[in-house]
Amino acid sequence: MTATTTSGTATGAGTRLVDVDDLDDIAAGAAVLGTGGGGDPYIARLLARQSLRRHGPVLLVDPDDLTADAAVFPVGMMGAPTVMVEKLPGAEQAAQAVQTLARYLDRTPTHVTCTEISGLNALLPFVAAAELGLPVLDADGMGRAFPELQMVLPSIYGLTASPMSIADEKGNRGVFQTRDNGWAERLARTATVEMGCRATISLYAMTGAQARESLVLRSISLAARVGARLRAARAAHTDPVAAVLDTLGGRELFAGTVVDVSRRTTGGFARGTAVLHGVLTDADQPPAARTHEARMEFQNENLLLSVARLGPGAGDERLLATVPDLICTLAADTGAAITTEGLRYGQRVRVLAVPCDPRWTSAAGLELVGPRYFGYDVDPVTSARAETAVPSR
Amino acid sequence: MTATTTSGTATGAGTRLVDVDDLDDIAAGAAVLGTGGGGDPYIARLLARQSLRRHGPVLLVDPDDLTADAAVFPVGMMGAPTVMVEKLPGAEQAAQAVQTLARYLDRTPTHVTCTEISGLNALLPFVAAAELGLPVLDADGMGRAFPELQMVLPSIYGLTASPMSIADEKGNRGVFQTRDNGWAERLARTATVEMGCRATISLYAMTGAQARESLVLRSISLAARVGARLRAARAAHTDPVAAVLDTLGGRELFAGTVVDVSRRTTGGFARGTAVLHGVLTDADQPPAARTHEARMEFQNENLLLSVARLGPGAGDERLLATVPDLICTLAADTGAAITTEGLRYGQRVRVLAVPCDPRWTSAAGLELVGPRYFGYDVDPVTSARAETAVPSR
Repeated sequence: MTATTTSGTATGAGTRLVDVDDLDDIAAGAAVLGTGGGGDPYIARLLARQSLRRHGPVLLVDPDDLTADAAVFPVGMMGAPTVMVEKLPGAEQAAQAVQTLARYLDRTPTHVTCTEISGLNALLPFVAAAELGLPVLDADGMGRAFPELQMVLPSIYGLTASPMSIADEKGNRGVFQTRDNGWAERLARTATVEMGCRATISLYAMTGAQARESLVLRSISLAARVGARLRAARAAHTDPVAAVLDTLGGRELFAGTVVDVSRRTTGGFARGTAVLHGVLTDADQPPAARTHEARMEFQNENLLLSVARLGPGAGDERLLATVPDLICTLAADTGAAITTEGLRYGQRVRVLAVPCDPRWTSAAGLELVGPRYFGYDVDPVTSARAETAVPSR
Repeated sequence: MTATTTSGTATGAGTRLVDVDDLDDIAAGAAVLGTGGGGDPYIARLLARQSLRRHGPVLLVDPDDLTADAAVFPVGMMGAPTVMVEKLPGAEQAAQAVQTLARYLDRTPTHVTCTEISGLNALLPFVAAAELGLPVLDADGMGRAFPELQMVLPSIYGLTASPMSIADEKGNRGVFQTRDNGWAERLARTATVEMGCRATISLYAMTGAQARESLVLRSISLAARVGARLRAARAAHTDPVAAVLDTLGGRELFAGTVVDVSRRTTGGFARGTAVLHGVLTDADQPPAARTHEARMEFQNENLLLSVARLGPGAGDERLLATVPDLICTLAADTGAAITTEGLRYGQRVRVLAVPCDPRWTSAAGLELVGPRYFGYDVDPVTSARAETAVPSR
């Protein structure tokens, strides 16, 4: 990235221009932070490259440079990532979602930003920004990816998804103003399914002051750093997973091979289970040497990782990680993130748990995105933090 | 009704105030014109009475008194009438649909009007008008009722359903701006289903000039006249069906008893078939004396009426009437219209065919609402017009 100001902070790199060459690192890092969701970063890169080539570089604004009265419009994709790999969004679609919401709110957007930091959704704001001639705020609503639209930290601060806009590649647009976030999710989800299981949305339009308080700040820069470290590790033939952990914190839990994937695209989501055979890699998890079977449950994103011993004395299933912590599946050799729709039989993978934004582990956070919300009657496991005791089993 | 101006024409009664006492006739007449659709007029009356009692009478504006630059907002219900009888709309819902579309269009409504002239939809504009302090234009989009939202005469004049608004009783609202009317129908229908199979919509917002050209004019007055004639016939113990035919034209086709009704609420519609046993009553339809079985196909509204001989020599099925003509089912004794969701075993009914607005029988009209659109591979039968030759069978 090209530094244009020197207002960089300890965690960001200041307001600067993002050009075509910067997109690969952001996409690669966001795919890791996306915990299996957010769609194929390859498609996101193609789309963003096209827009930046046509319109020139986009200004990525550090939160320190955001005025309190700015009008920040998050933009992202809604739908099943299994469909997104076959049905590409158009560049104008991202801009239309922002424009449609702006028209309804009668407010002129000053910045776009990410709903979530994940493959496609980390780059889509750059597409919208390029088309609309706006800057991108260096932030996102989750610090990771989650499958439902109310699952953003602004929800905890009392901001609502409604009014929200939706746009498809056929030229259809809509606005929903709902009584609560649950209804926004329901109505937008059914519209997304009818539009072909994939749509662009803009929601949680907010002021600069609200953005600075409620969003996860500088997460686009963080994604770029993860991507850069991965790239450097590959060039230097060092361990890419170690580079990711060094940047994000967290720990490696499991290394193995995908032996089964069952998936179903239902209700506009890609749901399913992946089964891995391999070994525990976390030194805190005895017995690490013995072969284990790991089960990963996902709904667009990875939700739960549990393991059980294989071979003699098989059984003793244990939960190693759950939402809201980030459960990231990386290719064993390159460290490249593997999306849930990209999981294939025979893949060699390494599974990491990375700490989520601490606000997600509050009572309000867990109500929105804890394992129980997703239908798993278990307490959240925060194995990603060395300081957090693993619940007794 | 109380005449307030003297601009009445041959077919309307001029611009005048509509008060609580006028609602019953409008509801009763609109239920006949609604051809089985549009929901229970009893519920419509309750709703409109409440609004008019609270806000006072509503001005019903004759099309002659409409300025060319007026902003006319049609408003109506979308969904399955089977659900509407159990799930009452709130008065504010009708107003919200108009307000939501007005906000999106950034246009101030000057009049509301009917999407269709049928039980609930004939009175809902009075509810919206009372809540919003606006007059009602004496017109509707069809001169009858049809089940899908693109099935209005403005479609033939190149007006589009989009942008359209939708509102439910829970406080949820939406706007759709779509590439074509088919997508408006698809997206609004799925939203309606998600909202509970019943929602209020506003669409085809138009200027006064467009309204005068494309709507069916003075159809609210026509409904009021039908209702008044029915009421008078009952009081005078004369034939109410004859009073209806005298007002609307058309002819009685069949009189009999409901022996079977199969209905299913699918895709947001009340679809089904009613079977009647009785006699042909149209003198032009030999042999009139012999017992026949009649089958009525419906999708919210009555679509097709066919008959076949019963008893010795049974068979010889013939189509007596189809959309776009109005097929009206009236109670044999009172002449009160029976809605498709109100059809019951044992009811004694008389079935009328009434000519539709002549624009519906144009090629463009039949493409929108002819029997083939509804999946019946038959030519339209216009038995309602004495001057039209019945297709040979």
